[in-house]
Amino acid sequence: MIARVLVDGQAGDRISVMDRGLGYGDGLFETIRFLGADAPLWSRHMHRLENGCRRLGLPMPGAGALLAEARAVSRELAQSVVRITLTRGIGARGYKPPTKPQPTRIVAAFDVPPCDEPAQAEGIRVRLCTLRLGVQPALAGLKHLNRLEQVLARAEWDDPTIAEGLLCDADGLAISATAANLFAVFAGVAATPAVDRCGVAGVARAQVLAAWPHVQVRPIPLDELRGADELFLSSSVRGILPVRELDGRALAVGPVTRALQSHWRELGF
Amino acid sequence: MIARVLVDGQAGDRISVMDRGLGYGDGLFETIRFLGADAPLWSRHMHRLENGCRRLGLPMPGAGALLAEARAVSRELAQSVVRITLTRGIGARGYKPPTKPQPTRIVAAFDVPPCDEPAQAEGIRVRLCTLRLGVQPALAGLKHLNRLEQVLARAEWDDPTIAEGLLCDADGLAISATAANLFAVFAGVAATPAVDRCGVAGVARAQVLAAWPHVQVRPIPLDELRGADELFLSSSVRGILPVRELDGRALAVGPVTRALQSHWRELGF
Repeated sequence: MIARVLVDGQAGDRISVMDRGLGYGDGLFETIRFLGADAPLWSRHMHRLENGCRRLGLPMPGAGALLAEARAVSRELAQSVVRITLTRGIGARGYKPPTKPQPTRIVAAFDVPPCDEPAQAEGIRVRLCTLRLGVQPALAGLKHLNRLEQVLARAEWDDPTIAEGLLCDADGLAISATAANLFAVFAGVAATPAVDRCGVAGVARAQVLAAWPHVQVRPIPLDELRGADELFLSSSVRGILPVRELDGRALAVGPVTRALQSHWRELGF
Repeated sequence: MIARVLVDGQAGDRISVMDRGLGYGDGLFETIRFLGADAPLWSRHMHRLENGCRRLGLPMPGAGALLAEARAVSRELAQSVVRITLTRGIGARGYKPPTKPQPTRIVAAFDVPPCDEPAQAEGIRVRLCTLRLGVQPALAGLKHLNRLEQVLARAEWDDPTIAEGLLCDADGLAISATAANLFAVFAGVAATPAVDRCGVAGVARAQVLAAWPHVQVRPIPLDELRGADELFLSSSVRGILPVRELDGRALAVGPVTRALQSHWRELGF
């Protein structure tokens, strides 16, 4: 039987209680959509992980070994989501990082979420979260393990007909959903919030920006967002999700959203 | 042989890779100084843990069971530091918290840090950290597992003669050290920064505030702090630490600091 989880390359699903990933959230992760042995956005995930390692001072594992491990855990699944977690490894008590960290590498395969074809076709309902994201340029953009803001925001609602929550920062700028990036279209021009003060620089977002280089990356105040002609979310797991309702206000699914959904399908998803 | 770590009451030092403490830093911790079987600040630690559980939506474990476990792991040590980590337990992938979480409880005993009598007597050197704490009222005050800010701040220096780093917020208010709270004395009046926008509400800080109810709790701009007559740090592990140098400027160890050190010793530390 093939292991579904590898810890440092070995079958096993447990880590030390002294791991700094547990103790301090001292690490990074990636959630990567696989289609059989292929992950169309693999190189973007590795690029972000490498950037995160550089900013946190972690050694980057070899991308070839990571890919082999991701394929090993997912190979019994026609489609899967592979989560790679990289921590600063075991350390003594205290915030000071070890001089030569031995990172812990966890590679785990999951089934893909249940089919969300209706969401893709008709769009999703999004509410406005009460929680505001804190501004922290030193961590902004990274997919690190300090995710209590997202946990608290996602705990704000339980209505299964609401798929996502919109997060603003303390200054009233719209930033993202709890687990997806945000795009808005104003008079035919697409824009996405900057993520240099808070938020995560999503891999699907990077793909959209590469495919459509004229998308504006800029601060988007919530008040401006409410006047958008189109809104959609991007997620490496869920793809391009049209927003059909924001905080009670109905929106049409427009041509820019549909064009990006086509692009997404062309990637193989 | 007595176990030094208990996970959910059982000997063992490993947890599941699916634990939300690892995945998202979704949990809380306490580091508690024990003198034999006694922890003079135990009830303050339990008070903070209970408050954290309420704010994060975690069930609080029975304090009696926690105390029994803390005593079990530490009973071979004349003095110890017991870390209690409480996470939201195992959950499916995704930020949404389980409706009925089964928290994971990790109780581990550590040796006390090497004797810092010179630090207690003469004071410590403190540098100013470049990293600024992000403002997040939803998490402020809690001793939660999202501690990357502290890790990055502590990684800023490697000089062993510098014991701590001063953290300010983005508005230039002095908040705390990386692993201790901060007190300043201005013309005989002691003050400590408010921790309702960022920072941790330390248990030693709570003890000082209870013992000296006239200490002001208020915003303290860095510029004002630089003019303080006395500065000291409070830590449940390290006690009351006089600051003899802040960012290159020498300070005298004054009478308020000495009086609080006496109070600390009277607690049994």
